Amino acid sequence: MVEKLFNPKSIAVIGASRQEGKVGHSVLKNLLQYGYPGKIYPINPKAKEILRTRTYSTIFAVEGEIDLAVVAIPSQFVPSILKDCVNRGIGAVVIISAGFKESGKQGSQLERELVETIKNSSIRVLGPNCLGIIDTASSLNASFAAGMPSPGNIAFFSQSGALCTAVLDWALGEDVGFSKFISLGNKADIDEVDLLLTLADDQETKVILGYLEGIEDGVRFMEVAKEVSRKKPVIIIKSGRTQAGARAASSHTGTLTGLDTAYEAAFRQCGIIRAETVQTLFDYAIAFAYQPLPRGPNLAILTNAGGPGIIAADAVENSILQMASFRENTISKLRKELPSNASIYNPVDVIGDAGADRYEKAMKTIVNDPGVDSLTVILAPQAMTKIKETAEVISKISSAVSDKPIVSSFMGRLEVKQGIRILRSGKIPNYSYPERTISALEAMVKYRKWKETPFGKILSFEVNKKKAEKIFTKAKEKSEANLTTEETREVLSAYGFSLPQRIVTETSREAISAANSLGYPVVMKIVSPDILHKSDVGGVKVGITEKSQVARSFEDLISNAKRFMPEALIMGVTVEEMIVPGKEVVLGSSRDPSFGPLLMFGLGGIYVEVLKDVSFRIAPLTFNEAELMIKEIRSYPILKGVRGEEPSDLIAVRESLLRLSQLVTDFSEILEIDINPLMVLPAGKGAVVIDSRLTIKI
Amino acid sequence: MVEKLFNPKSIAVIGASRQEGKVGHSVLKNLLQYGYPGKIYPINPKAKEILRTRTYSTIFAVEGEIDLAVVAIPSQFVPSILKDCVNRGIGAVVIISAGFKESGKQGSQLERELVETIKNSSIRVLGPNCLGIIDTASSLNASFAAGMPSPGNIAFFSQSGALCTAVLDWALGEDVGFSKFISLGNKADIDEVDLLLTLADDQETKVILGYLEGIEDGVRFMEVAKEVSRKKPVIIIKSGRTQAGARAASSHTGTLTGLDTAYEAAFRQCGIIRAETVQTLFDYAIAFAYQPLPRGPNLAILTNAGGPGIIAADAVENSILQMASFRENTISKLRKELPSNASIYNPVDVIGDAGADRYEKAMKTIVNDPGVDSLTVILAPQAMTKIKETAEVISKISSAVSDKPIVSSFMGRLEVKQGIRILRSGKIPNYSYPERTISALEAMVKYRKWKETPFGKILSFEVNKKKAEKIFTKAKEKSEANLTTEETREVLSAYGFSLPQRIVTETSREAISAANSLGYPVVMKIVSPDILHKSDVGGVKVGITEKSQVARSFEDLISNAKRFMPEALIMGVTVEEMIVPGKEVVLGSSRDPSFGPLLMFGLGGIYVEVLKDVSFRIAPLTFNEAELMIKEIRSYPILKGVRGEEPSDLIAVRESLLRLSQLVTDFSEILEIDINPLMVLPAGKGAVVIDSRLTIKI
Repeated sequence: MVEKLFNPKSIAVIGASRQEGKVGHSVLKNLLQYGYPGKIYPINPKAKEILRTRTYSTIFAVEGEIDLAVVAIPSQFVPSILKDCVNRGIGAVVIISAGFKESGKQGSQLERELVETIKNSSIRVLGPNCLGIIDTASSLNASFAAGMPSPGNIAFFSQSGALCTAVLDWALGEDVGFSKFISLGNKADIDEVDLLLTLADDQETKVILGYLEGIEDGVRFMEVAKEVSRKKPVIIIKSGRTQAGARAASSHTGTLTGLDTAYEAAFRQCGIIRAETVQTLFDYAIAFAYQPLPRGPNLAILTNAGGPGIIAADAVENSILQMASFRENTISKLRKELPSNASIYNPVDVIGDAGADRYEKAMKTIVNDPGVDSLTVILAPQAMTKIKETAEVISKISSAVSDKPIVSSFMGRLEVKQGIRILRSGKIPNYSYPERTISALEAMVKYRKWKETPFGKILSFEVNKKKAEKIFTKAKEKSEANLTTEETREVLSAYGFSLPQRIVTETSREAISAANSLGYPVVMKIVSPDILHKSDVGGVKVGITEKSQVARSFEDLISNAKRFMPEALIMGVTVEEMIVPGKEVVLGSSRDPSFGPLLMFGLGGIYVEVLKDVSFRIAPLTFNEAELMIKEIRSYPILKGVRGEEPSDLIAVRESLLRLSQLVTDFSEILEIDINPLMVLPAGKGAVVIDSRLTIKI
Repeated sequence: MVEKLFNPKSIAVIGASRQEGKVGHSVLKNLLQYGYPGKIYPINPKAKEILRTRTYSTIFAVEGEIDLAVVAIPSQFVPSILKDCVNRGIGAVVIISAGFKESGKQGSQLERELVETIKNSSIRVLGPNCLGIIDTASSLNASFAAGMPSPGNIAFFSQSGALCTAVLDWALGEDVGFSKFISLGNKADIDEVDLLLTLADDQETKVILGYLEGIEDGVRFMEVAKEVSRKKPVIIIKSGRTQAGARAASSHTGTLTGLDTAYEAAFRQCGIIRAETVQTLFDYAIAFAYQPLPRGPNLAILTNAGGPGIIAADAVENSILQMASFRENTISKLRKELPSNASIYNPVDVIGDAGADRYEKAMKTIVNDPGVDSLTVILAPQAMTKIKETAEVISKISSAVSDKPIVSSFMGRLEVKQGIRILRSGKIPNYSYPERTISALEAMVKYRKWKETPFGKILSFEVNKKKAEKIFTKAKEKSEANLTTEETREVLSAYGFSLPQRIVTETSREAISAANSLGYPVVMKIVSPDILHKSDVGGVKVGITEKSQVARSFEDLISNAKRFMPEALIMGVTVEEMIVPGKEVVLGSSRDPSFGPLLMFGLGGIYVEVLKDVSFRIAPLTFNEAELMIKEIRSYPILKGVRGEEPSDLIAVRESLLRLSQLVTDFSEILEIDINPLMVLPAGKGAVVIDSRLTIKI
């Protein structure tokens, strides 16, 4: 796919320059300096030789095959050069030149020309407006970056070139190895999806890091990311906000949808580990790259100082990790091995005068405890501390343990420097502060849990799709974006939702027989296209329990309507089944421009609107995702039943979510839908749609 | 107070040792090496000279005065040496020796002896089990730490000696200056309160940092911390959990009180800036030490790379900061000064090829905008970036601006190193990642806001304290820890709470006249000490609207009780005023062993119990604190009135909180009190206690 980008046998540098400081010079220099083993063809019509390499006037002057071209010439000349590349049969092109979409109207036009040019060819383009690429395994540095990271197992792609340089500098400073570095630039062709696919199969890459500002095709991204995340951890820092949430929201769902909600939901569904900050991105990266995934949440802490040990234990309390409880014989062994004033319970404190030997004994005993899934080793430099030796001990033990991650926090800066270097080469992720070890291990535990949870199936209910289709078609014909109550009811009913039964009646006699057939109690409402707020004109009667009340209510409703709104067209009175009170929940969906239908779930009522206690997922939902969506809200215990209350019918809630998912997936014309409230009855008794609204694209 | 600790004219080192590596050697060496200008008397009966300094056999052999003694001898000899120090009239003693409270029973006994020894003297003791003290201004290093920080404006005290060494190493590595370093050790005498008082008046100290695991006298701590925080920022990292919350909680308030709640509340009331992690502690420290407080929340971001700029802007969105909007002429000036493809709106992007001059122009223009309160400068190293020069420009501009903090994020590690050094000497707080600049500035804005908010007054309502006292006395006499409903009602009524009126009646005739005098509707309930759950036996009737119903209800209640519980002693029927429904809130208080009465406030009902939406403060409350407590809960909008609902009587809620604060402050025997619910009526109509319970210490 993007094969020629990473393993080219030959490279042309179009715009290779003699002048130091110029991008076209830096790229060539990097290729030469870092030992690219393939053929290099500098293209420059005015020079014979640059950096002792023979140049060519055009790519057509090159005799051999060209796998990859790197373009570093002013933007206005790029489209025609790209055409040459296509004609010359070049496999891939990296366009470093800026001056495209990012720089206004004219640049956008140039970029459209690029896209047009490659449309029917097999050529792949990275950029424009990028830093280039680096592949340490093939000694390829086709970028104008300053420096080359050492080989390693972390791949990084970035939509920001500047962030690439910052990360590279960090990699060099901290001596963290990388497999590949890809600067995406404007993503005229190659985008994050291509890279995820490539990196998923890349032998050298264990962890994929990315910085993204936006995703064009969210649906495709999710499809690919889901699969790739099963193979290796994908850690992404996503900045910027989608414009979707910014448009005026008319629905309940819309109001509760934040600027970043769709990304948050999509990442969660795909198992993407989201880093909130650049620092977390790296903290996670080294943990995943260097250490195995923990089997479970039970963490042991080993320290030579009480305070930092407590700080770490506090962090555990605020995470999904748990403090491991040691077996009897771990404790008795530690008691024998450590001085009497040491703490032998987790966190284990070998105390301030511990040398490397004491750390070694304690570590061995702790990692052998079957109840320990991971270990954090803390070292605060004190008078008797053996920093280097302790680092060596940790590295040694870690290399002998294959299924329990070991991370460390050598605190301070100056004194611990050499120790940290030893840890680094022993593949121990080290963090200046103990709390960061906890957050890295937590990310690993979460990822493992996600990886081991089956996706679940997307159920397909038997529904009357045809009927819904007809209603939408009719509404479109009438240019009616907001469906009427009746139409919305019919759509939902066609998709298997329970609705209170109701019968429209025109005489009190009809009303009585309707009530008799529905069963008491009933609710009666005036029917009039002119009366929007029925309650305000005395147009609603609830809790009607007998025949005589039905007749009286019928007359009352009609006379109230006539009195308060003499002009209104009165079409009759509905007699409705009265739903016994249950728990109100809200289901809804809005449409994200990138990811499609975004489903929302929350507890109904005024409290939840204020407290914004809702969960989101992208449709179509799997069975398991619907389950998680329900459990995720903070007020979930209320549905499960607190204080001896009966549990609500959670199965009905889940089914409602799945049916809604099916509906919004079937009809992309649905812009927004609210089911608010869905009345959830006690377990086994179902859930009924009390009110709903639906907006379509006309 | 602890004057002699920091400005001693002479120091005795008791336990000075010839042997390198021993603590008694290191202390003496540090005193000599870092140029302590006063007299030094090494005390060692076996040596004539250590490190070319004349030794003395005992402190009594020293002729001159001794201001400070540093003790580094085995713990069992310390009590008698301390007695000598008292007798010799020494001002202060630093006990470095370990082997006291931290090491078990015997050590605890030794520590008690120390406390006993100094009881009636004016001598002050730091430690035992500590690292010592450092005072850079007086070139005093009376510790066994490895190294001496450069002079600066940050003071640090720590309950963990190991954390002291780690921080010191960090200070040396990052070249951050400190004024004082104090290792508190076991706090046998000198504690955090003494240090806050001393450091508040210390000329050299601009920022006070502390690491604490526990506070003994919370009340005194709050008294002092409140005053000190008004003078300078106090940033504390508090780890460990109080045991208070761990005891079985029987009250509602108790259930909702977390392990750390009292500390969180106390710190908030005292304006203490709480750092959640060690890294944040330092991040905040350098911001407060190097830069002025911002006048307001409006931040400008200046960057040479889009991505990091967006990351910073995202962080602003999640903070109380705001993106500054520039004045017209700032924008037009930037447009003139910057290239056409630069972004001239906040975040300002001078783009990748910016040299120092472009940064300079933009910075000057931005800081001159009156709508900008602070500035974050981001630099991602790119091909044309002038790192050192840009650092110099930032330092220069910062030194010319006195009222707007400027912080920076030079990203990366290796390339930016020199630049960061320049920033450091220019007093620019620099952070590796842009998001950390935001969190530091946010802490400054919050602190300034707190500093400028008046404490408010503690109101004193006219109450019937005598009556409450009598009830408590009687309950204590009866050994009755849980007050009866009637007693609790009386206490609350004595403190001015509104309670539904109720009249106990013994005949239906009495009931009718009671109802007539209360006014309809009324509630009627059976009265029996044997019937706890009245509803279960048909013992409650609500919504009684007329005379005939009163009579019938009376008979019903009596006969129900007789039928369901024939053995029960029936004392009559209460007729109660029926309270119209309002918003239910919960008020409560529990007693923290360190801080005293901890007040709780939240919205009532099942939702809030599940969502734990409550706020806490330590009593006594000021008027302003009560106000904040109400506004702090997430569901506050519900009280204020959402969706066109009437606002609740917030004035009555505030008054209820203040009255409760007065009650629990007046009576330390109140262990727990719950007012649940307090029914809050619409604005102007008050609030009524519907149910309550009270537990006292007997």
